[in-house]
Parts: sequence; C-alpha cells; structure tokens
Amino acid sequence: MVEIGVGKRVAVVGATGAVGTEMVTTLHARKFPVGQIELFASERSAARTLETPYGVLTVNPFSLEAAREADIILLAVSGDFAKQYGHALTERGAVVIDNSSAFRLDADIPLIVPEINGHLAKGARLIANPNCTTAILVVALAPLDRAFGLKKVIVSTYQAASGAGAAAMAELRQETANALAGRPVGHKHFVHPIAFNVIPHIDSFQDNGYTREEMKVVWESQKILGRPELAVSCTAVRIPTFRAHAESVTIETHAEITPAAAVTVLMDAAGVTVVDDPAAAAYPMPLTATGEYNVEVGRIRRNLVFGAHGLDLFLCGDQLLKGAALNAVQIAECVIA
Amino acid sequence: MVEIGVGKRVAVVGATGAVGTEMVTTLHARKFPVGQIELFASERSAARTLETPYGVLTVNPFSLEAAREADIILLAVSGDFAKQYGHALTERGAVVIDNSSAFRLDADIPLIVPEINGHLAKGARLIANPNCTTAILVVALAPLDRAFGLKKVIVSTYQAASGAGAAAMAELRQETANALAGRPVGHKHFVHPIAFNVIPHIDSFQDNGYTREEMKVVWESQKILGRPELAVSCTAVRIPTFRAHAESVTIETHAEITPAAAVTVLMDAAGVTVVDDPAAAAYPMPLTATGEYNVEVGRIRRNLVFGAHGLDLFLCGDQLLKGAALNAVQIAECVIA
Repeated sequence: MVEIGVGKRVAVVGATGAVGTEMVTTLHARKFPVGQIELFASERSAARTLETPYGVLTVNPFSLEAAREADIILLAVSGDFAKQYGHALTERGAVVIDNSSAFRLDADIPLIVPEINGHLAKGARLIANPNCTTAILVVALAPLDRAFGLKKVIVSTYQAASGAGAAAMAELRQETANALAGRPVGHKHFVHPIAFNVIPHIDSFQDNGYTREEMKVVWESQKILGRPELAVSCTAVRIPTFRAHAESVTIETHAEITPAAAVTVLMDAAGVTVVDDPAAAAYPMPLTATGEYNVEVGRIRRNLVFGAHGLDLFLCGDQLLKGAALNAVQIAECVIA
Repeated sequence: MVEIGVGKRVAVVGATGAVGTEMVTTLHARKFPVGQIELFASERSAARTLETPYGVLTVNPFSLEAAREADIILLAVSGDFAKQYGHALTERGAVVIDNSSAFRLDADIPLIVPEINGHLAKGARLIANPNCTTAILVVALAPLDRAFGLKKVIVSTYQAASGAGAAAMAELRQETANALAGRPVGHKHFVHPIAFNVIPHIDSFQDNGYTREEMKVVWESQKILGRPELAVSCTAVRIPTFRAHAESVTIETHAEITPAAAVTVLMDAAGVTVVDDPAAAAYPMPLTATGEYNVEVGRIRRNLVFGAHGLDLFLCGDQLLKGAALNAVQIAECVIA
C-alpha cells in the first residue's frame, strides 16, 4: 500500500490493462478519498511500474492476502479470475467491485449503474459492474422507462476496439498502418481483421444465434432496469474505432412519447448529455464522446414503425469510462456515501 | 464512340467517378454486348484518358447531342444534372438508366432492382437506379416479403466512404494516415472527421428528424417492394470503411417465421449469398463482400422482440456494385433482354 492521504485503502487488480489504468486515473480525477493505494496485476505484467496521477506506482503480482487488506477492491480482471477470488477477497471486510461478467446475473449480487440503482450498493460486499454496452445504454433508457414505460428495445451497436482491451487497441492501430502501407493486415485479438472492416461477432455464439455480448445487453438491461420481462434485442458489431461505443436504439413505449417530451426527460437525467442539434451537425459521435463521463444522446426522433409510441435515438459513450472504469468508481462512491 | 464489337452503343456519363468507373468495368465483366462505347464527364474531368477493360479510352466533356446518339446511357451524375438532362437524353430513342435520386420517386418512372421488378424495364425510356443502401437491403427483404409478408422493418446501417464518392474514399485514407501519424486529421468531404469515428448523418436533415438518406431507404423500399404502406425506419451511419455497406436489420412478419425457413428462402433468392455459419466465424463483412456481386446475408436468428413473427439479420453488400454500378448494368441487361 502506498500512502496517499486521508481516506480508504483501495486496491486495483488488473491495473495495467485498458480498464485498470482508467480506474486509477478516474479515482484521482473524481477526488475519491484514497488513503492508500495498491496496484496488482498478473505475474506477466507485475513488477512493472505505472505512471499514475498518484505518481509512479509499482505494480505487484496479485496476492489474495495482500489485496484483501483493502477497504475497496476494484477488479479489472477476467471472469474466471473474478470467480476464483471474488468472494474470498471480501472475507476481511473489503467491498469488491467487479468489472467482469462473473457475478452480474447472480440474484444475490447487485448489478449497479449508480444513476439508476446506486442505493443497492449499501451493505453489499460484492458488486457487479455491467457490460460496457449495457451501461451506456441503460443510462439513457432508465429515465425514458420511468417516464413512458419501455415495451420493446431494439439495439444495434458500433463498438470500439477498447472493449477487447489495450492489446486490441494497439492491434487496430497496427492493422490500419499495415493496410495503408499495402502490407498484409493480419489479425490476432480479433477473429478477423478489423482495420476498415466490420465484425458482427463479439464474444461467443449462443445456441439461439445471438452472441454472448448481445445476450449480456438483454439480461443485464432487464436486471438493472428491474424489468425482467422487458423485450430487448441486440446486434453487437465491432467497428474500427478506438474507445467509444455508439448505439442505434429503437424503442416502443407503453405511454405515448414525443421527441420533445423525451428531450425534456433526458435533459434532466444524470449521466446524460443531450447532443441533438441537426442544424449544427451536432449528434453523438466517438470523436466527441471519447474522454467524457456522460453518455451523449441525440438523433431523437419519432420512430416510423411504432408511431406515437416509438422513438429512435443514437447514443455514444466512452467504453473505458461509463462503460467500465467510471461506473466502477461511481459504485465505490456509493459504497462510501 | 469507340468501336468494341457487335452490340449496343453505350454511353457512360460521369465515367471518372467511383460509380462511373465501376459501370465500365462491370459492363465488360458481365459481357454486356457493347458495340460502341463513349465516356463522358464534366469539363473538369474530361479530356483525360481512362484505363478500362476496353483499353485506354478518352473521356469527353459531356454533350447532350453526342451522348443521346447511344442506345443505352448510364448516368453516374448528380441529381441536379440528371434532372436537367435526363429526359432530353431519351429523345432520340436512348434508354437512360440514372443512378441519382432525381427520378426515383416519380410515379411514372420505374425504380428497379432486377431480382425484384426487372420486368418494369420493358418499354421504359428513363429508369431509376435505387439508393445504394436500399438496393442492398431489398435484395434480401423481397424474398422474405413474398414468403412471410413484411410488417415492420427496422434498419441501422454501417456505410462505407464510397457512398460519398472517390474523393471521400481518398479522404478516409488521408485522414487515417494523419491520425496514425499524430497530425491534425482534418476533413473536407465529410461533415466531421471520419477516421476512427462514426457519423450518424448522411445527406441532409429533414423536418421529421430523419436524414434524407434514411428517408430514401423508407420511400424507395416501399416503392420497389410495391408495399407503399410498409412500416420502415432507418438510422444511416457513416463508418470508416471503404466500399461495402453493412446493415443490421430487424423485421416483423405477418406469417410466422423461423430462421430455418428464412434460410431456405434466402438460399433460393437471386442476388443473395447466405453467409451464416457462426461456428466457423462466417457472417457478412465488408472484408468478404467487397468486390462481390451478391449481397451477403447472415446472423439470421429469431428476434427477441417480435417472437415467432420476428427475425434479425445482418447484410453486407458492395456499395459500388449492387449498390450502384452492378444494379445499373443489370437494368441494362433487362432492357435488351
């Protein structure tokens, strides 16, 4: 543990990855009361040092005994790792906030997006952070659900390389350079080359023809919104962008909805920035959403298929922030509130 | 006119653009009976020569008198140009096939995708070639409509730079090189930078909040399918790919539909290649659809929102081929059949 000031003992496990490094940065940027901090990673990445806003920190190989001395443990690790250590990490009183899919659908573990159900953090020892696409989606859907009652949700995604980790982001860069130079493009972290391509395949395929990524959006949205019967369908698509996910969303609502009424609701919604001025060519884009905490929502218009009960909208949120690290830190804020 | 062999006199107007060059290549590749060929372009592009499968051809400045001596005139020009010259070009008996949006919705002008309504070419003097996104979409939708009866269609697109022309394709390349080199990215043909970005804005915004590109998909699909009341909604999005458009499509049908029944119908459909083997990571992608005549259709699965009447699918087609030049040449084939 490195002394920082007065506050909580915080451990970040998986600290050298794309999400882990953003967790450390976000703790600092949001002035989370960090008393001491300790970074852990796998043997492969450990014993490195990491430049952080808290200074240059050593990254230690993960140790259950050392990590669980913390008050708050942020996990940016694989689902398998989380399953192996998640519960054990809580045994000395730490609160564990896990970014993997390991516990998200467990009935007794809260799955939290603070703007929606942050109250569930109180008293919980193990808390799940949602899938990135889901977190970005429900921040916009929840206020619309409260105001108009969601009936159907149809989503197509435009997902950035960061969702597959830091190495995948580097691969997008390398593949693209290869393509421009006329060299063989190659690919390693993606199933096919991603440079100047579109891959409608994220995570593994399920028996119903959907990918696991698509079903995460269905299952996790239902749980976070508290609407287990909500009809949700998703097509999850990887595209050659670096770190902000965009989503094209069509909804049908129980109550009548108008674009103006939806804008009023969304302007008041925490975590949302309405970016919707066609005349000024203003709408959500990775270019503008990257590095932002809020999810951009725009292209709000009456849907041509569901009539007075339908709305189309377009979202964009930073996959590493609201989709991962920011949401985890916000959960930590709820824990100590 | 340059002598080629025995056959029709063909003029291509706008021959130096992304679509025009593909028209010439496609005429040759499909062994269209070209007797003589003459290429026209604007003053700016004319007096150049163009390497074609018919040899190096001179590109002449457009002349109404010269062009309308042809039997078949393929127009790869702006809507304004088509409006100005389209009808006049037919006055000596030529059949004009126009790739612009000028005449597509005119009640007395056929809007043709040969696999669907090629019979309308007989006797027509002026024929409209559909919007690229629409052409790619309806090739897959028409057989499903015939078999199951479409009720609702919801589309989100992943559109390539080629839809904005050859200069836009060059701009994507340049912007991307700039981004990789850490130089200012810049932008000219797109409203915002497109390198590693997503722009949910193609063509101009309409009063209803949809773009004209999105409404083209609605209006033209209704006309080509002969279903003026069909509920269609579209979100059209530009992404950093070069020349194949992908589309995420959700349909609701009047009759019950299953993925297996849909696959059977699509396997028999002209212009469609079913690419749908998740276990082999086979699905439609720009990487594989580029340069192909057929539209790839895959990710065929029961939709989670419309139940037994719903299907999700993913399409990818070459924007310059089925989305433009190939469809125009196929129309020409119908004309002389």
